[in-house]
Order: sequence, then structure tokens, then C-alpha cells
Amino acid sequence: MKINYPTKRISYGSASTTSRRGMSLEDDINSSNDYYLANNIAVIHKKPTPVQVVDVSYPSRNKAVITKAFYKVPSTTDYNGIYMGKYIDFEAKETISTTSFPLRNIHEHQIVHLKSIVEHGGIGFIIICFKSCGECYVVPLNIILEYYESEERKSIPYSVIKERAYLIKEGFRPRLDYLKIVKELIESI
Amino acid sequence: MKINYPTKRISYGSASTTSRRGMSLEDDINSSNDYYLANNIAVIHKKPTPVQVVDVSYPSRNKAVITKAFYKVPSTTDYNGIYMGKYIDFEAKETISTTSFPLRNIHEHQIVHLKSIVEHGGIGFIIICFKSCGECYVVPLNIILEYYESEERKSIPYSVIKERAYLIKEGFRPRLDYLKIVKELIESI
Repeated sequence: MKINYPTKRISYGSASTTSRRGMSLEDDINSSNDYYLANNIAVIHKKPTPVQVVDVSYPSRNKAVITKAFYKVPSTTDYNGIYMGKYIDFEAKETISTTSFPLRNIHEHQIVHLKSIVEHGGIGFIIICFKSCGECYVVPLNIILEYYESEERKSIPYSVIKERAYLIKEGFRPRLDYLKIVKELIESI
Repeated sequence: MKINYPTKRISYGSASTTSRRGMSLEDDINSSNDYYLANNIAVIHKKPTPVQVVDVSYPSRNKAVITKAFYKVPSTTDYNGIYMGKYIDFEAKETISTTSFPLRNIHEHQIVHLKSIVEHGGIGFIIICFKSCGECYVVPLNIILEYYESEERKSIPYSVIKERAYLIKEGFRPRLDYLKIVKELIESI
């Protein structure tokens, strides 16, 4: 579903409304992955959020309760798995910006990781969603790199993504059929 | 380095000595994966341990401290990545038993996951280490399934693993060169 709201103004903050019915991007991708798994299309999972555990208590013999821990910076991307016999690896990011995707949203080691995946014959990309209009795109790594490695720009204009990346069709099941695009990318290699 | 200590008796408990110099299997695999990554051989990472966060406090503006959380049962295996263009997925387990590997060490959903990986063209296996003698093996999924799906046995005899699985050479760098065996498995497909 491709809807353009070029003149829509969004409120900057966590309570900004979106056209994606209150579901987070993560929820949408996870439910799509559940669909792919249940229908034997692909096996793709979100990696758990890394946590540094500091203290654990054992109120009963078999029950460990973590009482102090910190979130760690992930060393790779959020999602990986297998589809059409290929190793798939991606990060998913939302932005409230209407005009561009700020590259500070992606850690340098995630870029390094994705480059390495592509060098080894895997399929690496980033799913970028614009919350204001509800559009989600599969953005191949080469487009990311073009802007990431340039000195001038620290963001990718929305217009570039709209023109050169691949809009993901939204639906009921799967919610975000991003593998449809990945299939085309694989077949075009 | 293959060392057999057939008559060695081990103490049952967490303080049992092993011939693997006090390094845990996880440490050995992680350091091997670091070696593979640094030498551009493969990109394989351990997934973070999944944690269910219940309470978080914010003692300062940018610092979240998790104050209550629980360990969750992992929904997949511990390790995955890419090698020789193939999707690689495995679980690693140690046992103190000298005679067999008890299959209760592996969750049913991990077996289901590995079966699914192999069906999709990935390479799925389990690394099994016998702490008593320090031997670690790459055990292909078909051997696991043969015993897992039989009604009678709930363990795989050490003798079967010794005969039919693949002993991993231990060394300095990488500590556990399991990809040498995976390479042979891929080339034999």
C-alpha cells in the first residue's frame, strides 16, 4: 500500500501518529517472519537484544532472577536467516523524518558487518520505514554505502530511496512482504 | 589434537577438570569465530542469550538499568552465520558423560529449527564436546535425528559419535577449527 502524504506534518516525538496502525516495525517484521516460517518459505529470526548481566539472585532452586543488567550495543544486525538457500541479513529502522533517512541511526559496525555478509555471498540490506507516510523500503547495501562513505551527506534523501530502493507491499499476511523483494534481488544477481 | 583418556575418571560437578585448559566450549567457539572473522573466512556469531525484561530504571537520563529480568528459553540455536556462501546454523553442547550424549540437552524446538534449516539448503549440525576427554565433534543433523526420533534411545553412544561424527582439531588459532569439517561437509553435498 503506497500512500504519499507530501504535505502532511508530523509531530516529533514518540506519540506521533503513523499510518501503520500502531504496530511497530519490529512487530510487523516478526509477524511476517512467523508467517514465512509457518508456511515453510524462509527461516528468519530476530536476534535477542544483548544484555550484560551483572547480578543474578536465586529465590528458589531452579529460578534465576536477573537483578541488575545493562543493555549492550548489538555487535551485528537484528535479523538473519535463510531464504531460497541464501543467507539473509538485515537491520530494520524507522524514522520520523519526512525528507531523509539519517545515517546516524545505523552503527558503523553494522555497516561493516553487512559489507562482510555481501562479500561472503549473503544478501544484506536495510529495511527503512518512514513513519510519517507509512512507507517501508528494502534498501540494498550499495545505496547505503554510497551515502555512508561520502563525506558530505550524513543522510539519504527520501527522494533517492523512493526512486532507487524497493517499496514493500503491506498486507494482511504477511504484514510486510519484504521477501518478495529479496526474491527479485536474488534472481537479479 | 586427539587425546584419548579412556580410563580417566572425572568428578561430577561444576569444578570438574577437563583437558581443555579451563576454557569453556563457548569461549573456544567464540574465539574461533573471532579468528574466522578477522581472517575473512566466515561471519559467524553467537546470538545473545534471550532475556525477558520486567523492570527498568533510569538513574540518569541516558542510562537504562534493568532491575528485574528472567532468562528465556532460546527459540533457535546459539550460533549462525555464513561460510562459503552457505547459511550455517548450529548448537554447541558439552557433556560430562563419558559414555554417551544425553539428548535431553537439546530442546525439541532446536531440532525442529535445524531440520528446517537443512530443508532450506543450510548447513545444520551440533558441536558435542565430551568434557572428560576433551574431544569435540561436529555431529551432522542426520545422526542426531536417527537417535532423537527413535523410541528406545534418549542418548547417542560415545562410540557412535567417535565412529560416525567428525572430531574437531584443537589448536592455537583457531582454538576449535570446526569450519575445516564444515568445508568437507559442504564439498561432499
